[in-house]
Formats: sequence, C-alpha cells, structure tokens
Amino acid sequence: MNEAQTRTGATEAVSHADMANAIRALSMDAVQAAKSGHPGMPMGMADVATVLYRDVLRFSANAPDWPNRDRFVLSAGHGSMLLYSLLYLTGYPGMTIEEIKNFRQWGSKTAGHPEYGHAAGIETTTGPLGQGIANAVGMALSERLLNARAGNDLINHHIYCIAGDGCLMEGISQEAISLAGHLRLGKLIVLFDDNGISIDGSTSLAVSDDQVARFAASGWNTMRIDGHDPEAISKALATARADSSKPWLIACRTVIGYGSPARAGTAKAHGEPLGPDEITATREKLGWPYQPFDVPEDVLNAWRALGAAHEGEVEAWNKRISSASSDVQALFAKPVGEPRAKALAAAVTAAKTQFAADESQKATRVWSQLTLEHLVPALPELIGGSADLTGSNGTRTSHHKSVTPDDFSANYIHYGVREHGMAAAMNGLALSGSIIPYGATFLVFTDYCRPSIRLSALMHQRVIYVMTHDSIGLGEDGPTHQPVEHLSALRAIPNLHVMRPADGVETAECWELAIGATKTPTILALSRQGVPRLRTDASSENRCAKGAYVLDEAEGARDVTLIATGTEVGLARSAAKQLAERGIKAAVVSMPSMELFRAQDDAYREETLGAAPRIAIEAAIAQSWYEWLRPGDRFVGLKDFGASAPAGELYKQFGLTADHIAGIATELVK
Amino acid sequence: MNEAQTRTGATEAVSHADMANAIRALSMDAVQAAKSGHPGMPMGMADVATVLYRDVLRFSANAPDWPNRDRFVLSAGHGSMLLYSLLYLTGYPGMTIEEIKNFRQWGSKTAGHPEYGHAAGIETTTGPLGQGIANAVGMALSERLLNARAGNDLINHHIYCIAGDGCLMEGISQEAISLAGHLRLGKLIVLFDDNGISIDGSTSLAVSDDQVARFAASGWNTMRIDGHDPEAISKALATARADSSKPWLIACRTVIGYGSPARAGTAKAHGEPLGPDEITATREKLGWPYQPFDVPEDVLNAWRALGAAHEGEVEAWNKRISSASSDVQALFAKPVGEPRAKALAAAVTAAKTQFAADESQKATRVWSQLTLEHLVPALPELIGGSADLTGSNGTRTSHHKSVTPDDFSANYIHYGVREHGMAAAMNGLALSGSIIPYGATFLVFTDYCRPSIRLSALMHQRVIYVMTHDSIGLGEDGPTHQPVEHLSALRAIPNLHVMRPADGVETAECWELAIGATKTPTILALSRQGVPRLRTDASSENRCAKGAYVLDEAEGARDVTLIATGTEVGLARSAAKQLAERGIKAAVVSMPSMELFRAQDDAYREETLGAAPRIAIEAAIAQSWYEWLRPGDRFVGLKDFGASAPAGELYKQFGLTADHIAGIATELVK
Repeated sequence: MNEAQTRTGATEAVSHADMANAIRALSMDAVQAAKSGHPGMPMGMADVATVLYRDVLRFSANAPDWPNRDRFVLSAGHGSMLLYSLLYLTGYPGMTIEEIKNFRQWGSKTAGHPEYGHAAGIETTTGPLGQGIANAVGMALSERLLNARAGNDLINHHIYCIAGDGCLMEGISQEAISLAGHLRLGKLIVLFDDNGISIDGSTSLAVSDDQVARFAASGWNTMRIDGHDPEAISKALATARADSSKPWLIACRTVIGYGSPARAGTAKAHGEPLGPDEITATREKLGWPYQPFDVPEDVLNAWRALGAAHEGEVEAWNKRISSASSDVQALFAKPVGEPRAKALAAAVTAAKTQFAADESQKATRVWSQLTLEHLVPALPELIGGSADLTGSNGTRTSHHKSVTPDDFSANYIHYGVREHGMAAAMNGLALSGSIIPYGATFLVFTDYCRPSIRLSALMHQRVIYVMTHDSIGLGEDGPTHQPVEHLSALRAIPNLHVMRPADGVETAECWELAIGATKTPTILALSRQGVPRLRTDASSENRCAKGAYVLDEAEGARDVTLIATGTEVGLARSAAKQLAERGIKAAVVSMPSMELFRAQDDAYREETLGAAPRIAIEAAIAQSWYEWLRPGDRFVGLKDFGASAPAGELYKQFGLTADHIAGIATELVK
Repeated sequence: MNEAQTRTGATEAVSHADMANAIRALSMDAVQAAKSGHPGMPMGMADVATVLYRDVLRFSANAPDWPNRDRFVLSAGHGSMLLYSLLYLTGYPGMTIEEIKNFRQWGSKTAGHPEYGHAAGIETTTGPLGQGIANAVGMALSERLLNARAGNDLINHHIYCIAGDGCLMEGISQEAISLAGHLRLGKLIVLFDDNGISIDGSTSLAVSDDQVARFAASGWNTMRIDGHDPEAISKALATARADSSKPWLIACRTVIGYGSPARAGTAKAHGEPLGPDEITATREKLGWPYQPFDVPEDVLNAWRALGAAHEGEVEAWNKRISSASSDVQALFAKPVGEPRAKALAAAVTAAKTQFAADESQKATRVWSQLTLEHLVPALPELIGGSADLTGSNGTRTSHHKSVTPDDFSANYIHYGVREHGMAAAMNGLALSGSIIPYGATFLVFTDYCRPSIRLSALMHQRVIYVMTHDSIGLGEDGPTHQPVEHLSALRAIPNLHVMRPADGVETAECWELAIGATKTPTILALSRQGVPRLRTDASSENRCAKGAYVLDEAEGARDVTLIATGTEVGLARSAAKQLAERGIKAAVVSMPSMELFRAQDDAYREETLGAAPRIAIEAAIAQSWYEWLRPGDRFVGLKDFGASAPAGELYKQFGLTADHIAGIATELVK
C-alpha cells in the first residue's frame, strides 16, 4: 500500500474540486479584504497544489522544522495566498483564519509576499522573482550533502518549487537551472505555472522561449501537462518522484484566475482584487456557495488530515536521530555548529597564534585561506565554494574535496560563473539549518548577487560572503573590477555585517565573528595585495568584536586620530610614525566593522574615536564614513572610479600614501 | 564581385596564419610586459577574429564613429588584447604600438579590460561577464529602430559579439538571449568561444549545458564550427549574414592559448603571462620568428588595408546623410536630442505650467507619466520601456506603440521580467549615440540591474532609469519590495544622478535634468503614493538643477531646517506648519539630488542648509544623509527593513508623520 493510496482513502469523501476551490476562495477573499494582492496565481495553481499536498508532499503541520520534510517553495511569491491557504488548511500552528483575514496588514503573519520566519511552514522569503527557484536548488543541494553525511534513513526528501513566467525570465533562474542540471539534483521538481500571462499582458509581448527545451538543454527531465487535470498532475508527480537521475521540470498549462468568469486568462486577474461582483460570479461558477473565508467542515477536515498524515514518520525519524552518532546529531542541532563551539574557539586561537608569529606580508585573502585551514576540519558544517575564482579567492584548503554529481560527501562547490545563483543557493543551504555556507567572488561582483545578499539579511541567514580583491588594490584589471562604492553600498543593507580585516589576526577574528553571527550574513572584504603584520597579540579576546578599536594609542593626548579599515590600516600606522617624527601624536583606530561599532555604547565609541581631529582612510568612496566624521574632519579615499595600473601606482595616484596622509594630518592639527 | 573577394585580393600575399599569429604574438607579448592579463582567449580566438575582420566586418579605422559600421563587441572583456591587437593592426588613430607595450599601465588607452572612451574602436566597456552580449542585444535593437527611422540606405549593419563560457554562465546572458530571440534580432551574430576552460579548470567542473540547444530554445539560429578552420569560419559567417530572420549563435570550438606548447587547452593559459620560455616555444611552434611587438611590414600592411577598405562606403554614407531629411539628420547629431533643445524646453514648460495649476494629489510616477506625455512627441529619440511593470511604472503614454519583431518603427519596448537585460540593452541603445533610452522597474529591483547601472555611469551614458514605488510607501507588497537602502546605495555610485522629486513640477524638472545630463545616467525615484502640490511656480528656471533649494523659508531667522526628498517634502511642510503654530520658525529644503547639490559652491550649500539645527527626513536609511548633518542634527527615517501593511499605516508605525517630526524639532530647538 503506498502513501498516496492511504491519503486518498483519508480524504475520499471530499472531491478534488472542493479541496482546490477552498484555496481559490480563500485567496480571492483575502485579496479582496486586503484591497490588494494577487488572486490569479493561487486560483490558477490550486489544482496542482492540491494534488501535490494530497498525493506526494511528505510534511507534518505540527512539525514544520522536521529536517526530512519535503520542501515546498513558492518561487512566484506574489501568489502568497496559495501558500497561506495551504498552511491554514493543513493546520500549521498559528496560521488561523484571522491571519488569512488580516492578509497584508500590519503585524500579521500573512505579509504581501511570504516572509521566512513570519509563520511556520514558510520555507523561504520569496517575491523578488527567480530567487525561490534558486533557493530550491540550494535546498536540493543541501538534501544531497546531508544525505551523504546523515544517510538515507535520516535525509531523503524532495524539493517542490512553483515558478512562474516571471521567475523563468529572470537571469538568476538560468544560473540555478544550469547548476542544478550540472549537479544532477534529481530530488528537485519544478512546477512551472505556464499561464501565458504577465503584468503587461500576454507573455507573448515579451517572451518566445521554449521553456521545456531550455531546461532540457541544461540536463533536466521534462514533461508538459494540463495543470487542471488532477490525474495528469498526480501521474506526472509520481513519474518525477520515481526517477531522481536528473531534476524535473513539469510545465503545467494553467489558466490564471481559474474560475473567474470575466478575468480568468487575463492580466487583470494577476495583481488586483476581483471585486465583489466578480467574486460572487466566481463562487457560482466554481460551485462554492459558502460565505467569504468559510470552508465547510468536511473540506477542512480532509485538508487537516493531510496535515497530520505524516506524524508517524516524524516520530520514527525522531527515534532514529536519537540513536544516531553524535556527529550526525550535531548536524541537526540549533544553531548549527554550536555543538562544536570549543573546536571553533580552538581553531581560531591556533590560527591567531600562528599569524601573530608570522612577519611575512600576505594578502588578507591568503590569511583567510590559512584561517580556513584551521576552521574547515573543526567545523564540518562549513561548505565552501567560489564562483569560478577558487585560486584568487583562496577559498579552498587542503581539507576540501570537490562536490560532483557522483560525490556529495565532498565539501567544496564549484558554483561556476554564477554569482547570483551561488548566493541564492547559499540561502537555500543555510535554510537547511544544518550547513554554514560560504562562497566567493570579487567584491565588485557583489553587485551581481546583491538581491540574494539582501535576502540573506532579510531572512537572518548566516551566509558568509568571501569577497576578495576589495579595492583599487586589485590593480591592472581596472575600474570594471575595482570596487569603490561597494563597501558603502553593502554597509547600507540592514542586518549585514561588512568586515574588512587589516591583517592575519584580524582576519581570523572576523571569521570567528562571521561564524558566530547566527542570525546575520557577513561580507568578508579581503585584499588582493599583501598587508604588514599589525597585531602580534593572539589572546582569546576578539578585538574586532566591538567593530573598531584603538590599535595604536598616541603617546600622551592625541593630536589626531587616524581611522582606517583593511589594507589602509597599515598605511595609517606608517603615517602615524611619520607624524611622531614631526612631534604630532596620532592614534590609529582599526574599524573592521561599522555595524558592530555602531552597536557599542556611546562611551566606547567616543573613547575610541576621540575628541581630536579625525582622518578616515579607506580606498573607496566616503559615503559611509560621514557617520563618524564631524565638520572639519577629513576623509582620504576615492571620489570616482579607479583605473587600470599596478596597485602601487594607483595608491600613489589616488593619494593613498603615508606621506599624503601625514601631510593632511599635519595641516589639520596646525 | 562581393566584398570578401575584394578584400581577399588586397591581402592575398599574406597568409591567414600570419595575420592571426600577429594577434597571438602581440597578445602574449603585451601580457608578458604587463606581468598580468589574459593571453589564452586572444590566442584561441585569433583565427575567428581574423576571418571576421578580413571577410565580413564593415568598418573603417579612420571613421570609428560611422553610425552604419558593423559593431564588434568583445563580451569576454578579459581578452582585451584581442581587441587592442585588432585596433592597432587595422590602424585606429591613437592605438600605437606604444599603447600596446603599455598594456595595463597608468594613463594608457589599453586598460586591463576594454574601457569605452579610452580608445577609438572600443564599442563598449566589458569585463563584468555577460554585459557585452547584453549590450550587443541593445545595439542590435538600436540597429532595427534606427533602420526603421532612417531607412535601409543609412542604417543596415551587423553586430558581432564574442562571448565566452563565463558570459554564458551569467544569468544576464539568458535575459539577453531570450529578448533577442523574441524580437528576432537577426543582425546579431554571437561567436561563442567554446574552449571548455574557465578559471577553476575544465568547464566540466561546473557546467553541462548544451549551449546550442539553449540558444535554439530561445529562437536563435545555431551552428557549430571548428574555430581554427578559416574556411569553416568564413562560410559560417557568410551563412549567418545571409539569413537575418533570427539572431545567430556560432559555437566555435577553440583551444585556449592556441600555439602555446605547454599551456594550450589548460586553465593556466587563461589569466597569467606565459613566461619568457613558453613565449619562445610558442613563437617557434607558430612559426613567428619576430621580436616581441614586432609585426612584419607585409602582415601589418595587410591588416592596415582592411582598416581602410571601407573608406569609400563611409564617404558615400556621408553624402547620403547630407541629403537626408532634417529629422533623420537629427538622429545622428551629437549629443542626440540637442537639435531639439527648444522643443524639449517648450515641453517641460508646458508640463510645469499644467502641473503647477493642478491641485490634485498624484503619485510622482503619475506626474512622470504626464511629463512623458509632453516629452515623447517633442523628442522622438526617447525610447521607453519597462520590465513588465508598464502600468505601475507609468512609462507608457498615448504617443507610444509597442515594438514587435515586425514593427521597429514603434517606440515602446516590453523588456519582460528582465531588469538586468533591460539595463544592459539600454546601455547598448545609448551607445548608438542616436537614442535616449529610458526603462523602468520598482526601485528595489535596481539591485537586479546594478552591474549595468554601474556601467552606464562608468561609460558616461545617458540612460534614464524610471524607478517607481520608491519607499515603504509601496505598502502591502512588503519588505521584499520596499527599498530602504537603495537610495543610499545608488548615491554611492560615481557619476550617477539619483533624483527624487517631490511633486509634479519637480518631476518635470528632474526629467529635464535627466535628458540634459548627456554624460551621466539618472535614477528617477518615484512614488507609488500621492503627493500634495508643493510648487506653483512654472517659470523656466529649473530649481532642481542645484540639487537642493529652500522651498519654504522661515519667517525671520530659522530655528530649524527640515531637509527632505520626494514624498517626505510634503511631510516636512506639514511639520513646519505645526511648528509655526508653536512659534518655531522652520525652513523646508527640498533636496531632489545630492549629487547636483554637492557640485554647488560652499556658500550656496551653507546658505541652503543654514546654521540652525537640521532634521533630515527620508523614508529610507540614514547613510547618505550624514554628509549633510552635524553632531546633534537628527535624521527621521528607517533603521531596518520595512513591513507589509498599507502605506499610511507604515508611515505612522515608522514615525514618518508631521506630528513626530514636529515633536523632534521642538525638542531639538529647546
């Protein structure tokens, strides 16, 4: 007896149409009550979603965090009422009918787009198109990685993702599709809501792609079905589940706003309430004579039975994990990595001790790699990777092995030249709750993955972005590859730590902070060029933890404070030495993280920055520095794009030299 | 007698191999001299480039701006020495052998990646992968648009684009390919450098796509050829030129670093100098016994003959344009639109007059649409569009018609849900020198197209980004759709004007400034929600031109200055009224553009902002405001992401109310 049969048994008294119409009615009613929203997609995909939940999805409403649950990702996040309807109908805790009635209102769990953390059962924040399908690829990758680590008994589930035309038009979808096809992530099943309508009207206004051929070109299995035929949907899902050799695209031909006599199949159904008259007409056409928000008891019971159907599986899983090895148990501890806090601390201390004793000039990207040599064995949850810049980014260590379609026990991912897909996949990996992902590219290319970085921050996910070649110090590659505005632009994103360490010891400390920030993503901005050793202390105190600190105090009352980050801290120290020779007492403050510094109390901040004139130094534009400067203080950095030349030449040309800084300081203290 | 025959005649004494080897030798020598760079790609694609220039490319080295030239776009910009070699060999003015020797040095024309404007013949700045192919799509679109306007005799050319594996892995390439296929841009011919190698090693580490099938799925014609077989290349190009029904992909199987005995076909050939010994061995293997940077006279002459081969065509074209209609001539005037300066001024004045007299509350996106109703007929060079948000963005007017594969005489482009592809295509449109493109999405989705916005700024292109729904005022769609950090993050980009008008008159003025900024792209940040009329003056003076100005002066000496942008200026005025009732004299400053304000002299800036305490108000984060605030001044805005609720509720919850602002001001002036 298979699952589907059991469950069909449990719900046999209620028709498929009634179950699907419950979704349609709740969706149109909630959008109407909110006076805004998107009824068309939930109404169009209600049949597919109903069959998915009825016949195949392994989930348990009362155990929304069960690690081995199937994932359901609504990439077309504007259709949020589809998801909220499903969560309410299947009985997720907290998703009451009141929440449905409060769709899109202040303080409700039912935001305009699904927001991770607002309600149990929302697997990821979607809405910015294409993100969900790329998260789903990350989830499918995490399923394989965890399967290889925990075994088939503990992790072996599917990832279902509903994507619309909009998702598939976004470039990120190609990166995701291509990566999933390459890695042959066969547990991933994408249900394409092929309704032929987007906001401007028929999709034929703007797109002529053969999506099925496109997915096939990236190594996917594909099918086309009628998205309103329950039997066809059920059969397609069974076929896809039975063959996990490659990811699956099921293109579901649907009618947007299905059931609405006047609006079905039109762009009008997409993004606005149907209006009371059309809702009445729709109820009639669907044969759904109930009051707004009213779901008859038998229909609700049938749905609730689905929400409870897998409770036994969850219990059995809990038993299995309780007898698993401590290494496997640690994978599912929250927050991930915490069981290994001691090993982490020891690894960081070992790294700091090594670096503090090493006089050689190395780039901070190299210090980062050397830090990883300690971290990777201590913390097996760390899964590294790079967007085809492995050697440049220094993200691979002697403890790494490349993940391939045939080996998911490995721990290093070749993301390809797909920065956006990488970042979104890392969000999916982090959402597993069992992986700490880090991935790399050049800092300038944070622009390519910025929408996903923003979602890491919005979703409070610990994703670590290793962003090297962090200034004009990148040199000859020129202005297209030189970040000048990126540090400020990233510091602008809420709940994101932007860390720019100055030497080996600071780099190890910043890694420790990144791993410790369980609710916050981190950008590690690392240099291409070498830096002098600045810190020779290797105590367990993490001096970067306060965001900024006095690296060198002036002897006696300060005449001037030099504040810098990363590669410019060494310059500041050199300038301070020149100033000392002139009898000017300069303190040097290293500020690896403005966010952490902002979080300190006023007294610490004032004591650190001091009352003397301040000069901030960063090989970038000034914008984020004004917060720490007063009228009369100075900034030494860039005002425009960089240029192509060796790094030393550029630093000279742009006035980033100890001489120039000392000159400005001398003038300032006159 | 066809072109190819003539030209083969002119170069018949010199072998194809020698011509191609000249590129290879210059490339490896220049990279070696620079001690950095990418020899592998120019060496691998030298055969394709040689045949392209010899047999088909219609260009004239001495007329690099000839509007009807074929375009050659090197999307794989790291292979810049391929382009520089071609420009030197064919005799582009200024591209001397000294420039080749100074590859990647300060002040040279030969930057690490091709920089538009550095040397004649560089059609666009490339290096950030995928941008070039998307620019090429814009160029192919511009070719069709201008063909429809100027006629076959004046505009009828091809666009050739070399793209590598990296370009095709980037998501933006999919948006570009999909758009080009949909619009059937048959003059576009993409030459895929299918060398199977990327930085991390074999592309098989990260990608398994069938690129030919992928392009075919988007409606392209496709071919596979041996990229080292001159006859096959020539034949393929002839075939592609003969059939312009769809764009063409020619996948050229090549060996990276062709000619290098030890490194050909390896990742080592990609991004570092070959080294003196390997260069010697390569010279021997290629049969190129000449000194570094030395090209024998006969080979150079053969290349130079190609550079001069179309001078007659240019001359004939110049004759034709001189007898064309003034409307057609205006298309090719520099800067574009200048001949219509009077019409532009009249349109803006008409809009301002209309808006100043209109008391109704309208969103600034609506004022923008009403402005466009005046601008579009006055300035036929304006080509509008939206990434599938036409109605929401207000980008379409009664003067618009949709561009379709069968009608390029139209002036409105449905870019689809392809923000990144849209922005890069707009760069391509602007680079034609004959079009002023504007395109739209929500402000939050500037993140999706940020790499291309940065290139608009770096290339000094007048691209106008109409970015609506510019704050939490977007309301119910919630934090994924609400920009909070984007104004600051965009203000961080050099040479970009970020304009946030406060009412109808300001919106018209900002449009005037955007069109007038011939060397600078503009972001117009526009509201979803209505704003009160603030300006009733409709004089020809553009008050936004100084970036900020005193909208309401206090009666008598100021007690406080309220500084705001966009939708918050009305709030500031309301707060000032409340304050006046309390006897507190508040001035209101509108600051539509920080960039233009920064460019004013100190005296104006100080006079505008005043000596009194300042309160800055913007429904966004503070970062970019600290520049205008002193210790003790205040900022009213957001510190974190927004939320999903009606806009009015959000403004209340986040303290963006006249009451709250007046309260803070009262406290501040105590």
